Amino acid sequence: MTAEAQHRRGGTAGRRAERAAAPILQRRQIVRKIPLVELLDAEGLELVHRTSMIILEEIGVEFRDPVAIAAWKRAGADVRGQRVHLPEGLLMELLSTAPAEYVQHARNPERNVTIGGRHTVFAPTYGSPFVRDFENRRRYGTLEDLQNFVKLAYMTPNLHHSGGVICEPVDVPVPKRHLDIVYSHIRYSDKPFMGIVTHEERAADCIKLVRLLFGDGFIDAGNTVMTSVVNCNSPLVWDQTMLSAMRVYARDNQAVLVTPFIMAGAMAPAATAGSVAQLNAEVLAGIAYAQLVRPGSPMVYGNFVTTVSMLSGAPMMGTPEPAMMIYFTAQLARKYKLPLRSGGMLTGSKIADAQAAYESMQTMLPTLMAGANFVLHSAGWLEAGLAAGYGKFMLDADQIAMLQIFAEGPDLSEEGIAMEAIREVGPGGHYLGCAHTRRNFKTAFYTSTLADNNSYEQWEAEGGKDADRRASERAQQLLRRYEAPPIDAAVNEGLRDFIARRKVGLPDGVT
Amino acid sequence: MTAEAQHRRGGTAGRRAERAAAPILQRRQIVRKIPLVELLDAEGLELVHRTSMIILEEIGVEFRDPVAIAAWKRAGADVRGQRVHLPEGLLMELLSTAPAEYVQHARNPERNVTIGGRHTVFAPTYGSPFVRDFENRRRYGTLEDLQNFVKLAYMTPNLHHSGGVICEPVDVPVPKRHLDIVYSHIRYSDKPFMGIVTHEERAADCIKLVRLLFGDGFIDAGNTVMTSVVNCNSPLVWDQTMLSAMRVYARDNQAVLVTPFIMAGAMAPAATAGSVAQLNAEVLAGIAYAQLVRPGSPMVYGNFVTTVSMLSGAPMMGTPEPAMMIYFTAQLARKYKLPLRSGGMLTGSKIADAQAAYESMQTMLPTLMAGANFVLHSAGWLEAGLAAGYGKFMLDADQIAMLQIFAEGPDLSEEGIAMEAIREVGPGGHYLGCAHTRRNFKTAFYTSTLADNNSYEQWEAEGGKDADRRASERAQQLLRRYEAPPIDAAVNEGLRDFIARRKVGLPDGVT
Repeated sequence: MTAEAQHRRGGTAGRRAERAAAPILQRRQIVRKIPLVELLDAEGLELVHRTSMIILEEIGVEFRDPVAIAAWKRAGADVRGQRVHLPEGLLMELLSTAPAEYVQHARNPERNVTIGGRHTVFAPTYGSPFVRDFENRRRYGTLEDLQNFVKLAYMTPNLHHSGGVICEPVDVPVPKRHLDIVYSHIRYSDKPFMGIVTHEERAADCIKLVRLLFGDGFIDAGNTVMTSVVNCNSPLVWDQTMLSAMRVYARDNQAVLVTPFIMAGAMAPAATAGSVAQLNAEVLAGIAYAQLVRPGSPMVYGNFVTTVSMLSGAPMMGTPEPAMMIYFTAQLARKYKLPLRSGGMLTGSKIADAQAAYESMQTMLPTLMAGANFVLHSAGWLEAGLAAGYGKFMLDADQIAMLQIFAEGPDLSEEGIAMEAIREVGPGGHYLGCAHTRRNFKTAFYTSTLADNNSYEQWEAEGGKDADRRASERAQQLLRRYEAPPIDAAVNEGLRDFIARRKVGLPDGVT
Repeated sequence: MTAEAQHRRGGTAGRRAERAAAPILQRRQIVRKIPLVELLDAEGLELVHRTSMIILEEIGVEFRDPVAIAAWKRAGADVRGQRVHLPEGLLMELLSTAPAEYVQHARNPERNVTIGGRHTVFAPTYGSPFVRDFENRRRYGTLEDLQNFVKLAYMTPNLHHSGGVICEPVDVPVPKRHLDIVYSHIRYSDKPFMGIVTHEERAADCIKLVRLLFGDGFIDAGNTVMTSVVNCNSPLVWDQTMLSAMRVYARDNQAVLVTPFIMAGAMAPAATAGSVAQLNAEVLAGIAYAQLVRPGSPMVYGNFVTTVSMLSGAPMMGTPEPAMMIYFTAQLARKYKLPLRSGGMLTGSKIADAQAAYESMQTMLPTLMAGANFVLHSAGWLEAGLAAGYGKFMLDADQIAMLQIFAEGPDLSEEGIAMEAIREVGPGGHYLGCAHTRRNFKTAFYTSTLADNNSYEQWEAEGGKDADRRASERAQQLLRRYEAPPIDAAVNEGLRDFIARRKVGLPDGVT
């Protein structure tokens, strides 16, 4: 029996043959060597900054949380009710303790990532209630889907972060969901992951899980092992759910992506620079608060930017104004010496069609060129975040691999200049057989295994499949040859025991 | 009867209503205000330049054309057989007469474009034998298809150039085809267009057509009214067909995109920088020759770059190495003070699916960021150039509109900063109804009419169409309300008369 036939039968030997044919190689995280692109000149950057300072001092930000309000009063801010007015001096003093970059540890130290500086980390999509499945049908996500995405991210060499709620496991009751989500990342991957922020108690559970995984000593020493995400209620409101979760993480030196989620025109002005001035004020107020909780806690300058269609009220992605906002926020984050979270493979399309890909790249290339450090929603995002797609996940991951190569910049070595080959071949010759080509053909050019560059006739003979179809099939192939990374049996037992006991005390109903 | 019902009947009144509802507005050509992105530092740029100089002097370029060889001998080049060895001094002296930018005149002076400097012009795809039609079927292109694409380009506000052989009109015999192609651009559009280069005589016919259109005096005064494209036979060969056509155009001061068509790994080394060093030598030799024909003739530093898959031999587009090559060539063109032709919406995909869009944007965004001045293949390209797609044309044009807005850079005016709105709305408010939003909602954010950002339910109720399907339907709608721009009756008669007489002397068979 051929390996292919075995594989169709799903046999162990077939899977082993598939693995041997295509081992899982993890690439080192991106350390960009290409220059940063900046759209604002010094004067423009200063104008946006100054506008944010006026917003923070004159209008202020609401912290709808008594603990935070008390902290702001102690810090000497001008607090009127829930409205905190922040003078630039106090703000900058607080921001000065936030680190410009930090290491997020993974349970496999080879998968540790640095977040900040010239480093970029790509993480999967986050928070979709729906899944677009292997048959390109839309249905609610399940725990199995979440675990499938964790496994796919684990097997993707250019995703350096496992993410968090890649899709909502709707088959698990909400109060228990966080335990299964975080355990799935721990068990089915060895890459760094995110904690849960939907409730202070759930954040505390995540802390307990990582204490079991890494040991109390490791966490108490201030090592960061989670990067979670909290959202501002734009305009200019931080609510208690987000603040209390952020507090739990900050206390143990765990990182948070402090992220205004902007639909400009609705939650921010119908103006590109003005929207950024507002979100800048929101981010800085949030990060400053985290520094009150624990000076030095690693916080990422986050943003998620869309515009609202004045025709339909729908959010729009991949259009020029969000791209500009990504560039602006990158310059601001660098000005304040903070790591930047921005961008992603965003789209409003329901399926992984041309709209999805145009919009994704019109978001993602600016994300790379602007110099984002943490990129959530890098793979799988569809339908303005309502759905996670298996095909889209694989297609996005393929593009990310290309972005990583691009970020490595020009090869100007002797092999890169190839004068030897040019001399050897000469006018009218061809390069396919020359010594330089034979030496370099495996590595010279990125070759996508999802893109179809064959002849029309061959493509048609192979079923005339579109890219999404091919990618979806590839996801299934990959999952068939998945093998979980090893985990210490006692640690695993401890995690499972904690989760089982914890679940008993939690209600089953969706709250 | 409603206007919609009339329109379904295809009535004149219906078409008139459609036109009134959406008049054709032409946007001014792009004059970029965003910074240029450069991947090579000064040392890297000098290294590539020096490598090209070594290639030109030591290896040389073959000019397989006795007229060119004679000219090179007169110019004092080191000519050995067909091999021309060019010292840097002679080369730079010749290049110094080529203009850094030029105006290409259109028959409607409002459609004139500047090519070079901070200006960018987008032109449709070029040269496809096949068409992907309104039913998403692949078939040979016809003259009607070509004219449809000319009409669509005319009606597209952000395409500032009508292009040339958008698709091959296979229903017209090859020796007569050039006449119908150029006449179609003249009659069905008033935007600038390209001449034909497949034969010296056909190029001469194009010159005759534009002399009839613009008048001998206008052409003899040195006004440029065509920008055509010639290809180098890489590596390092210029053939007689291309050189003789280039000569015809250069003599009358008509512009040419002097373009090596590179499949790196086959026609250039399996190395990114090395491929650019070779193509740079090829371009410069071609442009220098045009300056021998007529000093000061406007020539564009052209390139079309792909890599070859070492697995299948197929060309690959939208991958990181061609993107880098686009950036490199842009820096080189600026070094030599020449306008740059590069990029396009390139893809190997057979259909306008996610692959097509990812690859197109991975080519087109580098094209914009690098600062290309003339972008051929900006709309409609599929299947590595073998097919022109109606849906793809519309989708690409939509993306181009976004690139144009992005290229205009940040709006940092008082309306752009929107402090008034932020003050008015305050924490927890919303912007939809505020005065600033009401003033700006029509222009604040680009709203694609091809992207579907509606709810899943609405999208499904409307047929669950993918982007290509919607775009293809839009192309049909647009063509229904097309109206030809006016043309002087006597000029039109003169053109038609010349073409009719000329066709008599030309064979019918495909040669």
